[in-house]
Formats: sequence, structure tokens, C-alpha cells
Amino acid sequence: MTVLDGVYYHDEARIKRRFKKSIKNVCSTKTLKRKLPIIQWIPTYSFGILIQDIIAGITVGLTAIPQGIAYAIIAGLSPEYGLYAGIMGGLVYVFFGSCKDVTVGPTAIMAAMVGKYVRGYSAEFAVLAALLAGIVELLMGILNFGFLVEFISAPVISGFTTAAALQIASSQLKSLFGLDGSSGTFFAESAVSFVKNIKTATLWDPILGFGTILVLVILERVGQGCSLSGATSQKIRWYISLSRNAVVVIIGMLVAFIIKQILDEEPVILIGDISGGLPVPKLPPFSAVVGNETYNFFDMLSSFGPQSLVIPLVAILEAVAIAKAFAGGLQVDANQEMIALGLCNIASSFVSSMPTTGSFTKTALNHASGVQTPAGGIFNSLLIILSLTTLTSTFYYIPKASLAGLIITAMLSMIDYNMFGRLWTHSKRELCVLIATVIICLGIGLEYGIMTGVIFDAAIILYGRARPTLDFYTVKSLKADLIVVPLNYNFSYCAAEHVRNILLKAALNASKDCFIIIDGTNLLNIDTTVASHLMSVSHNIDKRACPVLFLNFDEPLKKMCIAIKPVFAEKFITTVQISDVVDVYMKNI
Amino acid sequence: MTVLDGVYYHDEARIKRRFKKSIKNVCSTKTLKRKLPIIQWIPTYSFGILIQDIIAGITVGLTAIPQGIAYAIIAGLSPEYGLYAGIMGGLVYVFFGSCKDVTVGPTAIMAAMVGKYVRGYSAEFAVLAALLAGIVELLMGILNFGFLVEFISAPVISGFTTAAALQIASSQLKSLFGLDGSSGTFFAESAVSFVKNIKTATLWDPILGFGTILVLVILERVGQGCSLSGATSQKIRWYISLSRNAVVVIIGMLVAFIIKQILDEEPVILIGDISGGLPVPKLPPFSAVVGNETYNFFDMLSSFGPQSLVIPLVAILEAVAIAKAFAGGLQVDANQEMIALGLCNIASSFVSSMPTTGSFTKTALNHASGVQTPAGGIFNSLLIILSLTTLTSTFYYIPKASLAGLIITAMLSMIDYNMFGRLWTHSKRELCVLIATVIICLGIGLEYGIMTGVIFDAAIILYGRARPTLDFYTVKSLKADLIVVPLNYNFSYCAAEHVRNILLKAALNASKDCFIIIDGTNLLNIDTTVASHLMSVSHNIDKRACPVLFLNFDEPLKKMCIAIKPVFAEKFITTVQISDVVDVYMKNI
Repeated sequence: MTVLDGVYYHDEARIKRRFKKSIKNVCSTKTLKRKLPIIQWIPTYSFGILIQDIIAGITVGLTAIPQGIAYAIIAGLSPEYGLYAGIMGGLVYVFFGSCKDVTVGPTAIMAAMVGKYVRGYSAEFAVLAALLAGIVELLMGILNFGFLVEFISAPVISGFTTAAALQIASSQLKSLFGLDGSSGTFFAESAVSFVKNIKTATLWDPILGFGTILVLVILERVGQGCSLSGATSQKIRWYISLSRNAVVVIIGMLVAFIIKQILDEEPVILIGDISGGLPVPKLPPFSAVVGNETYNFFDMLSSFGPQSLVIPLVAILEAVAIAKAFAGGLQVDANQEMIALGLCNIASSFVSSMPTTGSFTKTALNHASGVQTPAGGIFNSLLIILSLTTLTSTFYYIPKASLAGLIITAMLSMIDYNMFGRLWTHSKRELCVLIATVIICLGIGLEYGIMTGVIFDAAIILYGRARPTLDFYTVKSLKADLIVVPLNYNFSYCAAEHVRNILLKAALNASKDCFIIIDGTNLLNIDTTVASHLMSVSHNIDKRACPVLFLNFDEPLKKMCIAIKPVFAEKFITTVQISDVVDVYMKNI
Repeated sequence: MTVLDGVYYHDEARIKRRFKKSIKNVCSTKTLKRKLPIIQWIPTYSFGILIQDIIAGITVGLTAIPQGIAYAIIAGLSPEYGLYAGIMGGLVYVFFGSCKDVTVGPTAIMAAMVGKYVRGYSAEFAVLAALLAGIVELLMGILNFGFLVEFISAPVISGFTTAAALQIASSQLKSLFGLDGSSGTFFAESAVSFVKNIKTATLWDPILGFGTILVLVILERVGQGCSLSGATSQKIRWYISLSRNAVVVIIGMLVAFIIKQILDEEPVILIGDISGGLPVPKLPPFSAVVGNETYNFFDMLSSFGPQSLVIPLVAILEAVAIAKAFAGGLQVDANQEMIALGLCNIASSFVSSMPTTGSFTKTALNHASGVQTPAGGIFNSLLIILSLTTLTSTFYYIPKASLAGLIITAMLSMIDYNMFGRLWTHSKRELCVLIATVIICLGIGLEYGIMTGVIFDAAIILYGRARPTLDFYTVKSLKADLIVVPLNYNFSYCAAEHVRNILLKAALNASKDCFIIIDGTNLLNIDTTVASHLMSVSHNIDKRACPVLFLNFDEPLKKMCIAIKPVFAEKFITTVQISDVVDVYMKNI
């Protein structure tokens, strides 16, 4: 009933039990149901559910199409890659996904993380990144490595998201104002490029861009308080609000199209030709040509470097966090979600997709649209396929400023502004972690920022373990003064030095006829490092200052200590012996 | 009086207090005495002490000379570098060192770590490594970063030492058997090279080498039980035993010299010409020529890479560990030791020395020889200077096999064989850490091995913090069943998921007329991550399963939670309120 971290006693028995359990688990129908969740819900699937799934799927699709195009642009890819990325997610997740609301597709953060490789090398790197991320996610899911994301704290996630949002939003300033020059890969680069090129701003791009932002904000407000179950006017308001991303893009597109037809001019920058048609299924690219150089598979791998592990980790983080947010208090099988996500990405990499993960916007939309099973994703995918086969020539007219407005609005709503105030009031230490994460993310790179945050947090825990609260007190008895140093719970190697220093401090307070009692009554565990420090410092104190006794040490701990210093065997005593032992010592003085 | 790790409440007050204290400390004579320990002992220095220091210094010097030559060979340097490395340590440490026994000089581990750079590039890299290590050590000492070495546990140190000893010993097999081919930089390389070239073994080298080992073992035994305070015969035995390193090398040298004079033959491989004379004091090398390429300072720095931080860290580890071992129960000012070591290395780099640190053998010898103050080091340095000016032509005759025997004997005695057995019996988990460290050290490199061990240990602590023991129990009361989940002490972000799962498990056991009581009576601290998980899971349970109440949360923790979920304000209750609150809920059902 108590909270005792790091108790290792029963480790072996536990490992054996787990092993037995996992062997048994592998071959049960329960496992099959868990690993292929479609088996759970398909038997009760009905026409009513189908209709609800279709409505939700189409609603999500209306946002997924403009978002897909926008995210491809963030990644520096041509727009069709974003649409390709929306296809396989829904089709694969329906079989393996355990959470009905989750929608797997391209996300802004994935796009920003892969953008570095696309701009530095070529589009093939994005597709290979999807395959690699998928394999890592799948493996981590199979090996139950999902717990790793627990080591990313809320402030680090918040800092990472804030930085990603700022970076992505800043990269859209170019399109929003219709500027010349580069959009920049980093926040600083984008900001500098923006300031440098601000004079090249056109008139109509910013008007359309800020108009888009305004319409999005208004449409969001329009839907507040409305729901599917309200009156017809409420229903319409709700639906328009939900599909506001599609609405603003369609408006922008219409404006551009009409101006083109009437004036034969293109006053705003358009995304231009998108290669239409479905992606040709083919093996993911295992080589790439960049400039004059050919990169083979291993060259590509080494270009990614170990940082590429951060892409699947962030993908898992997003997907699992979203699954939990929408699980409504049910347990989420994080490992199954990772397996599903991994398979989605692997399948996606065969249709030239960028890496995908659970998308918060689309999942929320899916939930709000009343989806009943993961089958909703199929209809989302079908809508994207439809748009790829029939609408790409229409997409020519999508103004970049509309997409920029859409992305910026989405990004600014991703930042958790409350977190800053809350941490300022309640935990400045955590605020430091958050700010450090933001700064490193923006200054050096998103991967480095999240790693810095994780290391920072871990260092705080380790430092806490290295400096446990520990003190001594004096008990005056008739026979002699006893300086008692109570060791409670457990001590890890990094606390060894601290324990040593406290004992030396206690010894400074001791006179020749004192006893130092190291009280292990509440001690649960120490490791070799602590045990050997304890023995060596006790030896020194015993020789120079006063006798040291070890009280009520558990049998295994006692044995461990005696193995280090056999002559101390008689110094380990229990409460009943203490009086006798003190007597013997006092006679010898 | 209790052991509570990671309690952050009083952090700010503590930081302020510390800051005040350190400002005050900087400008006191006590500080001066601490930073320049010579001031403490020089006033009471006497002729008697001088004699004892001279005896000890010369005794240490007799070992320092052959060891210096041997360690230079381990580093792949020409022998004089090892002697140069012995000069400045003693002269600088006398001013800044706080522990009378410590002897700073070249060590086998430092030599092995720097050897990689010497063999890959040039000797200049070793000297620059000394400067860089010195600067890092000095900075870490000034910034009080000494606590970092506390995060290297005893099993990791033991694993590292074992691997270093095996690697160094294996690299000497070539000289021991008088083989052709390379001696190898890694353990595997040395072993393979040994097996490949074993057929080229000569007759006399192994005889001399194994003879040396035998004599060393015998001479060590001879000295056992003897001391300086015994009878004359005991004194002689003791002294011969102490200077056994010099004895075997002198024997080898004599044998080689006599054979040369009589038969004009060199049946064993000799170390050959050593450039005599003192090193010319000059700036450390800020550029180096390797083959046809010139490396400027930054090229050299980037050749070292971030792993070069491991050299000063290991140096600090050795020096501080030795200082503690010989401090005899007194507090060791680790930061002062680091400053002294840093200055020794910086000074050494001006006389073409390889990196130095506290040497266990020489320190033990110094202690056993009855040194009284750090001034003993001066006489050790003087003896080395004397040998450089007058004896280098004699050193020509030192057989490599003698040095190999000396090194192998020293290395095999460095391994803590007991540690393996002790950990096998008492802590298999720690044994795994030790073995992992050894394997990575031998297979990939010493730096990587120690880093792996540190990360492994840290991961165990973090995992412990992520899975605190936590459970729930049911209290049946007249009014309703209460499922109590006691949160004790403190929880870090990584435990958030675990807390959430336990609460969900508790909720599964609940019926509609149950209450889940999250008992914070003994809760000291949670962070934002835990608080927000707690709020979100409680919200879900409250909505779907049964009411959740928060009992006896501290005011700051309560405020933190309510900031996340304001509607929960009324759910935070104290023990006296519990009955009333339950009544109100029961009426509403």
C-alpha cells in the first residue's frame, strides 16, 4: 500500500511469471481479438452504423483533402503526396485500430520533421521515412516498448508542440504575404526570410490569407453550442463549422477561378498543377538521386542518422495521446495502437506517402461527426481517392494564401497557452523545462528539442534520487549517547556519496563514548555501490571516531554488506541486542 | 527524518540561501586555505617531515620511472612522454592538492584512452588531450560539477576497470612473446593479432616476460606482513617489495646489457633510444601534421569529438576515488581535487605530457612509504628529472618483455574479482550492468562502455520511478463502499500513466454506488503531468463509473489540480467532510 520506487527484490520471480503469461497469451482467441480488433465489432455491424460511419468519413474527408495538400507543402513535397498519405491510413487502421475515433493521416508535425530531409535531399526520403517509421513503430509495438513515451512529460510535449506550431506557422508567412525568397526550414530562418522579403509582399495574397483566418475563426464560433442532435438550423451551423477547412479553401478556389475566367489574371499565387490520378503502388524507394549523386539505401539511412528514431517516437506520441484522449476512460492498448500505426505507415510507403500518424483535428472531427467504428476511415479514404482521380485539375486554383491561413489558424490553436500560466504559478521548475524545450526546438531542431526536454526531466529525477532527505538525531540513554542515522526505503548508487557525507557529518558530532547507529529498520533496498560506501565509511568512523552499529538490517542486505566487509558481521544487531552490545563496548573503553 | 527523493518545495529558498552562502564564501581566508591547501601545512613543516617526504618521494619515483615508460608505450607514444608526464603532477599538486597521499601522474587507463588518438593521428593529440582534459577538470571543479561522478555506480566502475585492464594486458601480449605484427588498439584486435602471430614468438622474450611476472608475484609476497616499523630484515623485505617494479626492470636491463657486452647480441627486444634531456617548455600543440594533412586546432577538436569529455571524466573518477580511499574517513573536497588535477594537466601540457590523473599504485606506495605532506611529490618529480638528464642512455637496455610483464601483472591485479561473485549472489541486476559495461568497453571502446553503463543504471532508476508500488483497497462503510487509492510521497511525470492505469483498474471494481477516494494524505508532490492525468482519468471515471473524491490534498497540490480542472474544486475534501459529501452524493443517486 506504500509507494516505494525501485524495489528489486521480487524481480526474478516476476520475470518468470511474466514470461509464462506471455507464452500463454500468444495463442488465445482473446489475443487474436486484441491484435485484430475488427473481429470484435464486425459481427454487430449494421446498416444504421454504416450510415453514421459514411457521414463521419465524408466530413473528415472534406478536411483531410485541404489539410493533406497543405501538409505536403509544409514538408516541401508536391501536393499530391499529402493526398496519397491520406489513403492507406484509413484502410489499414480499420483492421488493426482499437479506437473508433482515431484517424491516421499526414500531420503538420510529421510534415515539419520530414521537411528537413526533403529539402536537403529529395522526395524519396519522405517515402522511405514512412517505411522506416512504420517498421520502428511496428517493432516497438510488438516488443511492448510503448512505455517509452511515458518518459516524455507534459511540459516537454507542450514545449515541443508550441515550437512545432510556431515553426510551421512561421514557414507559412511567405505564402500568407505572397513573398519572394525561401520559406525557411527553421523558425529563425523563416523569420529572417520574412523580414528580408517583406517588401515583396503583394496586395491580394495577404488579404485572402487574413480573410481565410477571419472566416475560420468566425465559422468556429458559429458552431459553438450546436450539435447533431439540435434543431435543423443548429445542425446546419454545426456542419458548416465542422467543414470550415473545406469551406475556406473552396471559397479561395472559387475566387481565384472566377477572377481567372473573367479577367484572365492570377492575382494570388496558386498551388498550380497537381499530378492527378492514383499513386502507382510500388516498392518504397531504396535509392535516390540528389543532384548528380546517387544515394543507395545505406547512404539514405546514414543521412537520416539516429535522429530519425525521433520521427516514429513522435508519431507514437501523437497517436497514443490522441487514442487516450478519445478512449473515454477506457484502457488504451498503446502497443496495439503502435502496431496499427506501424502497419499504416508501412502500407503507405508503398503508395508514395509521407509518414503519417494519428491526427488530432481529424480525430476530433471524426468523434464530433458521430463515427461508430474505425470503418469511417474507409469513406474518408474513398473521398480522397475520388478527389485524386477527378478533382486535381480543380485543385489548380487553390490559392497558397488560403492554405497558409488554414495552417496558421490550426497551428496557433495547437499551442496550450494555459500551460504557461499554470506552470508559472505552480511549478517554475517545469516551466524551465518547457522553455528549454521550446528554445532548443526552435533554435536547433525539433528532434533535439524533444531530446533535450527528456534528458532535462530525467536529470531532475536522477538528482532527486542522488540527494534523498537524510538526517541524524541523538538519543541520550543512560549508558551512552546514540547518534541514530535512519536509512528509510531504498537508496540507489547515486545516493551513496550523500549517505557517506551524512555519516561523516554525524561522526563529527560524536565523541569517543558515543555510538553511531545506522538504523535499517525501514530500509528496503540498497545496491552494491551504497553498501560498499556504507562499509568503507563505517570502517573509517569506527577506527577514528566511535563504534558504528547496524540496526535491524534485513537478512539479504546484511549478507550483502558482510560480503563486502566480513569483519563487520558482529556489528549487525537487532533492537533487543542493542543494550548488550553497548555494554560490551563500554567495558572495553 | 524520512527519505523522500525529489521533493521540490523548498527549492527556491534553498537556491537563494546557497547563492548568499557562496558569495560570502568566496572572500574568506577559510576559502583561501581550502583553495590553496599548502597554506594549511607549510607553517608546521619540519626537518623530520622533510626526511619522510624524501624517502617516500624516492620510493614512488623508483616505480614512476618504469611505469611512465610502460604507459607511454601503451599510449603508442615514445617512452620519454611517459616520463615528461611524471614531472609536473608532483610540482603542481603540492600547492593545490588536499590529500597528502595522492600522486598525480600517467596511468594505464589514461594511456589506453588516449592511445586511440595517438595511433589514429599523432603524438600532438596526446599533449592537446592533456590540455583539454585539464581545462575541463578545472572548469568542473570551479563550477562544483564534481557530483557528476556520483552517477557512475560501482558495478560500472568495476566493469570499466576490468575491461581496461584486459584491453591493456592483451595489448602487451605482443611484447611479452616478442611477436611480429600490431599490438592492436582494441581487445579483439589484440587477441586476433596475438593468435595470428603466435608462430613468430621468440624464445627469450617470453622467458624474460614470464620471469618478470613470477619475480613480481614473489616480491609482493615477500613484503606481506612487513612494515617500516619492524626489525631491519623486515624493513629490507618491505622496501624491496615496494620497489619491485624498479627491481624487475633493473634486472631485465642488466641481463640485456651484460649479454650485449659479452656476446654483442640483443636476444630480447629492447625499447631502444630514448631522446634524453628535459622537455622544452612550450605552448601545447594547437596544430598537428598527420601524413600529408595539417590539422588546425578546430580539426583536432573535432577529431576528439564529444567522446573526449570522457577522458577528463574518467580522470576525475580515478583521482577522486583514490583521494577518498586514502582520506581515512575525512571529508574529501572533490571539487578542490578536480581543480588541482586540472592545473596539473594544464601545466603538464606545456612540457609535452600525456594526460595524467591520480595513480592508484603510486598513491598506495606513497602512503605505505609514510609520506607526510604533498611535498613528497616534489622528490618523485626530481628523481624523474634526474633520470631524464642522466639515465636515458641506460634506459636503451630496458627489455620490452620486462615492461610487458610489469604491465600485465599490474593490470590483472586491478580487476576486482570478488565483485563478480558478490553480485552473482546478491544482485544479478547489477551483475548485468557490469557485464554489459565490460562487453561494450571491449567490443566498441572504453568511452562507449562507461556511457552505456551510466545510461543503463539511469534507466533502471527511471523505470523504478515510472512504476511505483501503488494499489487500492476497499473500505465498506454503512453508507457506501469506498475504494481507496492512497498516493504516498511523490510521483514524477513518468509515473502518470501507471497512476492512470491503477485508477482505471480500481474503477473496474466499482459499482454505481461506490466512491473512489484518491487519498493524498501522505502525498508530498506531484508534477503537472501526473496532475493532468489524474484529472482527466478522474473525469472519465466520474462520468462513467462512480464519483471520485480527492482526500486531504495539500493546498498547493489542490490548487494545481483545480487549475487544470476547475469544476473539480468541490471534490477536494478533508477527512471530516467525507461523511457529509458521501451523504449528498447518495441522495442524488
